[in-house]
Amino acid sequence: LSVQSIEQARARLAPYLEPTPLLAAEALSRRLGREVRLKLETLQPTGAFKVRPALNSILANLDACRESGVITSSSGNFAQAVAWAAARLGVSAEVVMMSGASELKRRRTEQLGARVTICENTFEARWATTFRIQQESGRLLLHPYDSDETVAGDGTIGLELIEQAVSPCTVIVPISGGGLIAGIATAVKASRPQWRVVGVQAEANPSMRRSLDEGRRITTSPASSLADALAVATPGERGFDAARRLVDDVVLVGEEQIAGAVRLLGVEHKLVAEGGGAVSLAALLAGKVAGSEAAVCLLSGGNIAAEKLAAILAAPAA
Amino acid sequence: LSVQSIEQARARLAPYLEPTPLLAAEALSRRLGREVRLKLETLQPTGAFKVRPALNSILANLDACRESGVITSSSGNFAQAVAWAAARLGVSAEVVMMSGASELKRRRTEQLGARVTICENTFEARWATTFRIQQESGRLLLHPYDSDETVAGDGTIGLELIEQAVSPCTVIVPISGGGLIAGIATAVKASRPQWRVVGVQAEANPSMRRSLDEGRRITTSPASSLADALAVATPGERGFDAARRLVDDVVLVGEEQIAGAVRLLGVEHKLVAEGGGAVSLAALLAGKVAGSEAAVCLLSGGNIAAEKLAAILAAPAA
Repeated sequence: LSVQSIEQARARLAPYLEPTPLLAAEALSRRLGREVRLKLETLQPTGAFKVRPALNSILANLDACRESGVITSSSGNFAQAVAWAAARLGVSAEVVMMSGASELKRRRTEQLGARVTICENTFEARWATTFRIQQESGRLLLHPYDSDETVAGDGTIGLELIEQAVSPCTVIVPISGGGLIAGIATAVKASRPQWRVVGVQAEANPSMRRSLDEGRRITTSPASSLADALAVATPGERGFDAARRLVDDVVLVGEEQIAGAVRLLGVEHKLVAEGGGAVSLAALLAGKVAGSEAAVCLLSGGNIAAEKLAAILAAPAA
Repeated sequence: LSVQSIEQARARLAPYLEPTPLLAAEALSRRLGREVRLKLETLQPTGAFKVRPALNSILANLDACRESGVITSSSGNFAQAVAWAAARLGVSAEVVMMSGASELKRRRTEQLGARVTICENTFEARWATTFRIQQESGRLLLHPYDSDETVAGDGTIGLELIEQAVSPCTVIVPISGGGLIAGIATAVKASRPQWRVVGVQAEANPSMRRSLDEGRRITTSPASSLADALAVATPGERGFDAARRLVDDVVLVGEEQIAGAVRLLGVEHKLVAEGGGAVSLAALLAGKVAGSEAAVCLLSGGNIAAEKLAAILAAPAA
């Protein structure tokens, strides 16, 4: 993946998406003794950064997508984003989701006009179903995290940060399949090699951390977590490659730490984040990101069920 | 109040506060058939726009404030803002709050380093206590909504909107004492006379609406409302004057409508707003702001207790 392809993605997205704010988190900065800023991908249409890779994937191949339609498979945030982008661009979209996917994300995807097919709650079934429908339908497959177009779309966040953040800084990024951190690290390290890029996973789903430890892509069993958006069995090739070459560290956070970050964001910063979107802040609060330079926590998504958020807010502060 | 004094306030605030984002609310725009944007004062330090008037009031008279200290009286958001600004500027601050004030806002004010004095739960007691302490202590009084400095600080939002919003548009503004809408309307109407400015109060505390109806400043009994930040007995002189001369309409919203807007902001837009901060959107959703031009809803604050927000989120959608 080249920085050029990320710049190309940025030009493609510009008519559709505004840069997201990089919020100065003053109270957090005081508390942690370093400048903390929050990159608000939660404020994107459909509530997550995924509109960037979804738009870029379709726009890179718009005529073919219009002619054949598209198909993808997603735990939810990419599904909504593809549905949204497809609707805006006049493209037919179908999405395969596992039966355990968030009900909220499924309903939203349908509301945005995509056809949703539910499969068994395993990653094998998910991809088998996706490939089968793709073969039968002739729809173009959009990969949620492991294609050049998705990673380039993700990388546009890095280009924005280069313009918005103070230098030097550490960028803290949630990891699912690794496409997001691959894109961001590619963009950032190309022009700001002294910046650090740190990835975060939930302890429940540590496939990237374990893959790095063992030097090859490891498959883990998906486990239930507040960070449902980050549950992936195996890192993508692009994500794993970037994590080895460009990422300074990958750390894990526990469920209590994730809930604490979601709560803090709501109470102190007036922001709704889903568990997977808040792992970056959870890692920083847990002292897992060393250094005194400025820190940027990427809040990658906010699609948490209202009842789940209510329960976290109603719980006593940790 | 002159536009010049608002521009002066803007220059004073620039080293301390970044402009707040004006978020494109795409789903809302589709639903309402007009472009809707949200001005995110909820993301200010201390969670409300009040840092603007607090900073401007102190900076306008910094040496004297440092020498004598400051005192104010507030239902909570101005209290926190004064405590925050005073701490940043090396000024001693005291705040008088009524016993019914939000516990959250009181605790935050103390955490920010201000001395809090609680008085009986009436506006008479609040002002009597404030004036008494002011006399005894020699502290400078900062008025929460009815001084030139507070209104000029509020008006800086209008200057930002002129740069951020599409033209023409209707700006929808919560009203408590009226300082906020006075500042914004002064800034906006000076260079964008074709823009509309609409104020919103809770039905429970309609002092400005009633004052306009009767052609003089009316005192109402403060009533309990989800929009606790907007409870004021009598409009300020500056607010009432501006409402008569510059504001196109003042509308009222009910408690259910306010709760619905708070819920929608959390679920759809990933934003925490307090009741008083969300009345602008409540009015738009309730069809009380006519027109098809773009609408800007000012979300003035987000300081809602976690349990209260949890209860609203857990309730079934209206």
